[in-house]
Amino acid sequence: MKTEKISELTTNRLSIYLRCLNELEASGVETVSSQAMADQFNLNSAQIRKDLAYFGEFGVRGVGYYVEELRLHLMKILGLTETRRVAIIGLGNLGMALANYQGFNQGDFEIVALFDDDPAKIGVRTRSGMEIQGAQNIGEIIESEGIEIVIIAVPATAAERVLEQVTEAGVRAVLNFAPVHLNPRPGVKVKNVDLTISLESLSYFLANPSDEALNVHYREFLRQEASNNGALG
Amino acid sequence: MKTEKISELTTNRLSIYLRCLNELEASGVETVSSQAMADQFNLNSAQIRKDLAYFGEFGVRGVGYYVEELRLHLMKILGLTETRRVAIIGLGNLGMALANYQGFNQGDFEIVALFDDDPAKIGVRTRSGMEIQGAQNIGEIIESEGIEIVIIAVPATAAERVLEQVTEAGVRAVLNFAPVHLNPRPGVKVKNVDLTISLESLSYFLANPSDEALNVHYREFLRQEASNNGALG
Repeated sequence: MKTEKISELTTNRLSIYLRCLNELEASGVETVSSQAMADQFNLNSAQIRKDLAYFGEFGVRGVGYYVEELRLHLMKILGLTETRRVAIIGLGNLGMALANYQGFNQGDFEIVALFDDDPAKIGVRTRSGMEIQGAQNIGEIIESEGIEIVIIAVPATAAERVLEQVTEAGVRAVLNFAPVHLNPRPGVKVKNVDLTISLESLSYFLANPSDEALNVHYREFLRQEASNNGALG
Repeated sequence: MKTEKISELTTNRLSIYLRCLNELEASGVETVSSQAMADQFNLNSAQIRKDLAYFGEFGVRGVGYYVEELRLHLMKILGLTETRRVAIIGLGNLGMALANYQGFNQGDFEIVALFDDDPAKIGVRTRSGMEIQGAQNIGEIIESEGIEIVIIAVPATAAERVLEQVTEAGVRAVLNFAPVHLNPRPGVKVKNVDLTISLESLSYFLANPSDEALNVHYREFLRQEASNNGALG
């Protein structure tokens, strides 16, 4: 593996490829070409080849990729071979929604602690039965529970202080929902969730409906071609 | 502008470029090269040039991009020249968090209606004073309020029915937080929000910390170079 920097955009694409491969495997597909994968999931085949080539040579000429093998490789690259333990700090509406979010408890990640400094919330249990703890012992619990990722869902004004507190306890990966830019120490990664990007992508579609219309027809055409030829969908 | 299909990954990159340009403009920067932009915001300069060239020739040899001009172009491409009216359906924890999310009410998007079918929630007001309405009049209100984008934050079992209801009322753009794959009619765009992708990007970092370490040093080096030369940061 090369040691150049990999952008978050690249790791996001790897996550998307992993989802596609999960779906292909669930459908019983054993091999797939970059072109077939691009067509089925509306991706760019040259980008797929380039991204995967960066991490090693996975494809086989004339065959494409072995779905299960590539899936396992991507899980390894993304560090998903062990369950990552996660804490949520701030149990307002967003924190509670995240604590109950199904996607966060499907094997790769496990939410193991919830913290809030509001006395009215301490001791309250979520739908899944987990109890909200006070914020004063965050450091100790992060260490004793082996928490690697912290989700910050506190108000903007409290976010920097929470970041310092968890960094002090050894956390190096933070998912920040607070609408504020945080400045982590070197070696600590803060990923900001910006939900507006999704709205902007819908706005693009509303402004350029013909793109999608073309797309629908093209994909329908490819599906028919594929089923006529008995090729991979 | 070409009429080939544009993937969501491309529009997401345009959204990120737009954020970078907003930041540059706020700092008083007037022109920027793709390389300087890539260095400052940890992006890929070749990708920037390719993405922007796709929509027309914005760069000027020896100068780079004019920040304000490019910013306005990107806003136009993303359809952000008019405020898009948005409704949220489902006011559980997530829906309430989204209703109060600051990023959704900053000029480009305006949340104008909230719907839930739980009698205990109808009539309740959010922090900003907006009242939750019953679900029986969704169609009429979507039309009378000119709502273009609907955010679905209902449980998975109700999501498909809500999608049909809003599609019937003429909505063509849906942001879906329900953890279920929806099948829209042709011409309707559903964007699924998958928060796990952000966690996977953090997992990659935890599995490959050297990437980020290199990165920090490289960026620091570039910043110093830039300030030594008086060049664009």
